[in-house]
Amino acid sequence: MKSVANHRTIRKYSHRDVEPELLNRLLAEASRTQTMGNLQLYSVVVTRSREGKEALAPSHFNQPMVMGAPVVLTVCADFRRTTTWAQCRQATPGYDNFLSFMNAATDALLFTQTFSVLAEEAGLGLCYLGTTLYQPQAIIEALSLPSLVFPVATLTVGWPAEEPALSDRLPLEAFVHEETYHDPVQADIDCFYGAKEALEENREFVRINHKETLAQVFTDLRYTKKDNEAMSQTLLEALRRQGFLHE
Amino acid sequence: MKSVANHRTIRKYSHRDVEPELLNRLLAEASRTQTMGNLQLYSVVVTRSREGKEALAPSHFNQPMVMGAPVVLTVCADFRRTTTWAQCRQATPGYDNFLSFMNAATDALLFTQTFSVLAEEAGLGLCYLGTTLYQPQAIIEALSLPSLVFPVATLTVGWPAEEPALSDRLPLEAFVHEETYHDPVQADIDCFYGAKEALEENREFVRINHKETLAQVFTDLRYTKKDNEAMSQTLLEALRRQGFLHE
Repeated sequence: MKSVANHRTIRKYSHRDVEPELLNRLLAEASRTQTMGNLQLYSVVVTRSREGKEALAPSHFNQPMVMGAPVVLTVCADFRRTTTWAQCRQATPGYDNFLSFMNAATDALLFTQTFSVLAEEAGLGLCYLGTTLYQPQAIIEALSLPSLVFPVATLTVGWPAEEPALSDRLPLEAFVHEETYHDPVQADIDCFYGAKEALEENREFVRINHKETLAQVFTDLRYTKKDNEAMSQTLLEALRRQGFLHE
Repeated sequence: MKSVANHRTIRKYSHRDVEPELLNRLLAEASRTQTMGNLQLYSVVVTRSREGKEALAPSHFNQPMVMGAPVVLTVCADFRRTTTWAQCRQATPGYDNFLSFMNAATDALLFTQTFSVLAEEAGLGLCYLGTTLYQPQAIIEALSLPSLVFPVATLTVGWPAEEPALSDRLPLEAFVHEETYHDPVQADIDCFYGAKEALEENREFVRINHKETLAQVFTDLRYTKKDNEAMSQTLLEALRRQGFLHE
């Protein structure tokens, strides 16, 4: 499938709109993805308005893709609709717990990726915003998400106005294990990460950040222990507020 | 894309093997999926041996697909490899926390779904086992998963020996929201779920389970509050043991 082999994150979009008919067709096709008990434990909030994007942008550290894309999709783990269905049908739902969040998040993420493959196959360009889990409360407020609905993925969607180079990947041996997990030792690490560390763009990345190794750029600057620990608390607190976690 | 439009869960497989070359090609292609910081925070454990499948089967309630498929893939959220890389490179990792688990689980699930689309496009049949999150500790032991590695998805993979009917889906309006979330009321629920409830197979499902409504089959039998709450504790405990959650 060419779109998967040629996947690039697209951050710059042309002025051409993404027609609602096309978007809806892709969302409907993506809904063929299997889900828990065929309950489809996800929802998608489609943001096209300037005001809507302005409300979301700070949650995503004002990355320019949010304002620059014609469409922003926020995909949510959603046990609300199923819970309301049960309540309307003389059934007693029990989905205000962590397992149910993980089940719904799984449905939402698998759906998100089917949509991504289909959208790229249709020629659209996407950027997946990992920031969704960093400040979920702000997204919950911007989109008026009720309890048992939680944002897990954001995609900015438009027609590509750039063609970046393919990014590198680890060799298959780095992530495929036969029968049981084989814990990597130093020699494995050298083998798995050598090519990535030798890339000129990564050497430059180390230099401009005044670090000694590429790994230090990740641990000291991009994804630090301090930030991860603080945002873990924020994330757990938001899960509690949305009803998915109890003491 | 025909494979997505025609997606069916396949639980019966022919005796034909899934050649390692084909499987590895599909896994390598799926690794084009975007990940956090291009760190590829996942691993795949490939189970082909009878002993390996026997070790996994009880975790999946002995569903026959585990023993019946030539290949079982367990996809794991993996911050272990990245952490070891950092330790080998004079960097101080900080990924033993809940946000890091969610980031790695996200990478793992998006990868899983790209693989699924590619595998179905190649003619393979898959069954996604949602049981992975129910008894994670048993899977962790069967596959020797070390700390910072956690199973999030299982696929049984083989060549299809059945052609089930397409399953139903909710209408687009049930899961797509424009600009903000629109909380469904009774009239919406009737509209979203009417067709599903009217299906003869679902009416039969209600009858044989001696229930009044389809929703009751889900809340009272398939996904009960009691089971969800117990398994939530099991899941949180397993996350603690694997190093992703602290008090």
